[in-house]
Amino acid sequence: MQTKSPLGNISIVLVDTKTPANIGAVARGMMNMGLSRLVLVNPPEDRDSEARKLAAGADDILGRAAVFSTLREAVADQGLVIGASRHRSRRRTNVHSPRETAEQAAPLLERNKVSLVFGNEVNGLENSDIALCHELVAIPSSEQFPSLNLSHAVMVVMYEFLAATMTGERLEARELAPVGELERFYAHLRDNLLRTGFINDRNAEDMMFSLRQVFGRARLDSREVSILQGVLSALEGRAKRD
Amino acid sequence: MQTKSPLGNISIVLVDTKTPANIGAVARGMMNMGLSRLVLVNPPEDRDSEARKLAAGADDILGRAAVFSTLREAVADQGLVIGASRHRSRRRTNVHSPRETAEQAAPLLERNKVSLVFGNEVNGLENSDIALCHELVAIPSSEQFPSLNLSHAVMVVMYEFLAATMTGERLEARELAPVGELERFYAHLRDNLLRTGFINDRNAEDMMFSLRQVFGRARLDSREVSILQGVLSALEGRAKRD
Repeated sequence: MQTKSPLGNISIVLVDTKTPANIGAVARGMMNMGLSRLVLVNPPEDRDSEARKLAAGADDILGRAAVFSTLREAVADQGLVIGASRHRSRRRTNVHSPRETAEQAAPLLERNKVSLVFGNEVNGLENSDIALCHELVAIPSSEQFPSLNLSHAVMVVMYEFLAATMTGERLEARELAPVGELERFYAHLRDNLLRTGFINDRNAEDMMFSLRQVFGRARLDSREVSILQGVLSALEGRAKRD
Repeated sequence: MQTKSPLGNISIVLVDTKTPANIGAVARGMMNMGLSRLVLVNPPEDRDSEARKLAAGADDILGRAAVFSTLREAVADQGLVIGASRHRSRRRTNVHSPRETAEQAAPLLERNKVSLVFGNEVNGLENSDIALCHELVAIPSSEQFPSLNLSHAVMVVMYEFLAATMTGERLEARELAPVGELERFYAHLRDNLLRTGFINDRNAEDMMFSLRQVFGRARLDSREVSILQGVLSALEGRAKRD
């Protein structure tokens, strides 16, 4: 385990879940996203074996799940309670997208316990449960088919929290080739194409412009520039040899 | 159905999926996110009844799924092919987060077919399949348990596309070359490089892989592919003339 993640302060709270397999799938998703605290409010009896099938190794999360009979008890020690609901209502105005929710809540994770609360598979959260939530998160979805699978809904919200706490990290941190290297390649290419007659003094600029656009978009690194130089030299060398 | 969504140009391509229930869960997620075109490459036989259980009404998506025996055929008419892979590698550098991927690709959806490709539940995509992808998307996850459930992975990427197309922003609406054209260019390039001896049977795959990455990142349109074909033919013709 590396340094303690702020995601450790998130609880996923499942209220009145009907299908044990969904609990297992949620536990697996939690493990994938780096979360660990699962809370079950009024869960089905005899859930364990079916839940474990879908948990794919997240048995530990299932085994340590806290169980309560009401949401009120479950969130008693939480600092921020966010309920998932796709139902907009006139009364309820603090409904945000998953991204807004995560970006606004992520800074709080350092010093606060945050619960993300999901209702049952058919009806979502009851009004009495929604009343316990500081705010709501609504996942965008098709108007025709808005009702997500429970574990999919939990996944999207957790993913946004992971993304929000990772900001600054970049999967891509490539070091691009210096422009000088690129220009030597373009000069080499241009010379070759002039010699073949593929371009001439009249259209050379236009054609090189198109090729520069292609390689510009490719954002080449030094190794790639030297491969392309190699390709060109090979074709050139072959031409000379032939 | 309201106005035609650009998401209609997205195909979800599942390669070598082992578990029919996952296909069903993906179909349901597609329906929720407003996608409709499912493509199955080498799917399990007798998948329908188990898949339908999880599809929760997305039977229509399952029923109309296109089936191919290879990924190469499945993406032949696609403009942009994005593979899901959690494996970072020294060789593969054009890997982006789901958000970056969706934000960069969303503007292309207006005029291009885009495939999101997911490998099997255990090993993900094979290298030969990854070679067909213009770029890769990697879902952030726990280092200890990085392997997401297939439908969870698809869900996260689709969700980002839905979020990206809801911003209303339109940056780039180029029409990319179909993969078939690109593959003819690669075949032509490969033949030439083999003949010059720049590559040989031992290193041809590695070198072509690097070149595919370069041109994949460049996201070529048909005009650019024919310019590159012209460049190659010119160098080849010169070689023959000399």
